[in-house]
Amino acid sequence: MLFRQLFDSTSSTYTYILAAGYGSDAVIIDPVLEKRELYLQLIKEYDLKLEACLETHVHADHITASGHLRKALQCKIIMGKQAKADCVDVHVDDGDRLSITGIDIDVIYTPGHTDDSYSFYVGDRVFTGDTLLIRGSGRTDFQHGSADDQYDSIFNKLFTLPDSTLVFPAHDYKGMMVSTIGEEKRFNPRLQISNAKEYAEIMDNLNLDRPKLMDVAVPANLKCGLVD
Amino acid sequence: MLFRQLFDSTSSTYTYILAAGYGSDAVIIDPVLEKRELYLQLIKEYDLKLEACLETHVHADHITASGHLRKALQCKIIMGKQAKADCVDVHVDDGDRLSITGIDIDVIYTPGHTDDSYSFYVGDRVFTGDTLLIRGSGRTDFQHGSADDQYDSIFNKLFTLPDSTLVFPAHDYKGMMVSTIGEEKRFNPRLQISNAKEYAEIMDNLNLDRPKLMDVAVPANLKCGLVD
Repeated sequence: MLFRQLFDSTSSTYTYILAAGYGSDAVIIDPVLEKRELYLQLIKEYDLKLEACLETHVHADHITASGHLRKALQCKIIMGKQAKADCVDVHVDDGDRLSITGIDIDVIYTPGHTDDSYSFYVGDRVFTGDTLLIRGSGRTDFQHGSADDQYDSIFNKLFTLPDSTLVFPAHDYKGMMVSTIGEEKRFNPRLQISNAKEYAEIMDNLNLDRPKLMDVAVPANLKCGLVD
Repeated sequence: MLFRQLFDSTSSTYTYILAAGYGSDAVIIDPVLEKRELYLQLIKEYDLKLEACLETHVHADHITASGHLRKALQCKIIMGKQAKADCVDVHVDDGDRLSITGIDIDVIYTPGHTDDSYSFYVGDRVFTGDTLLIRGSGRTDFQHGSADDQYDSIFNKLFTLPDSTLVFPAHDYKGMMVSTIGEEKRFNPRLQISNAKEYAEIMDNLNLDRPKLMDVAVPANLKCGLVD
């Protein structure tokens, strides 16, 4: 598999390109507007045909590049069925399977950070968006977030994957790039708990600032980034 | 193999942890002082025994964590024989092989960025320090750098590795994490040349600012970061 993890340092966002190999069909997960020229360069150099932009959710911290990539490369934009974005071409649901040449992507509905949060499971790795982060988890205090839902998504869905599954999140703020389900079970400080009530207590007391870009990013992302 | 790439966003430095698996002997390549607590946390969580800190060269843009890791974990500090750092435990030379449980590391002398620059070749991947960057290369205008030497290191040493070899550099400034020898042969804009003279012309005209931390970092790194 051709697999590339890319980083936008402004929003600390990870973007992923997946393909069977050079010259194959490809998907990109969570592309960032400001990095679109880099994606176009790499897609050209790798000789890929971009089939789809997948979004793990409607982001509040950066604007997506999906609309611009669709304009440039005629790919589809794929999001969960809960995403209220008219610009999306294909809405997926829990249990769906997306296939491009040589790669099967199993769609897992993992609400909690938002009510439109999905994870994508591909072979030995899972792309967890803002649901499960490395030694952390996505906040649950806006965009119909729910600590109860996130507890269920993490413990009853993601944590049923094999312990060796590689975890690739949508963000990291400390310089880590990958973890595993087994590592997060043992070492994620927020997840050393025994029930959803304890998790909600942790999440309800994070006292985080409102995301700086939220009022700009969410409306822009509902238009797949195609704003002036 | 347990393989982790880690990022220091201040200096845009990549650090690498390698081990045969959880609970094994390990090495760390180019650790950064400010991230030492993260390394100690991960080494503990992965249940590793840190055998050695490897430095690709005496860095001018960040201070190494090697001295602090040796104090905490009693590992060895390994650098090339040209490195003028008395704090180093083992000096290696071109053609040497370092072995820890399950991992063989072939040492390649790749001068040019500095005269003490080495690359480390491990199975399907090579750690190129500041010699070969992704779509770039390390500057050659201080610390006994030499564009001629770097041309030779890249074209006559690194580019003799299989095209599929994964390239893991010491830095990236655009959000890319890995490349391959084949990609760099084809797409590295500085390397689309036919001889050392053309390369020297490119490198002699970069007009880069002096590294901000150079006067602090180089003396500190000659003491393995053990300064007040």
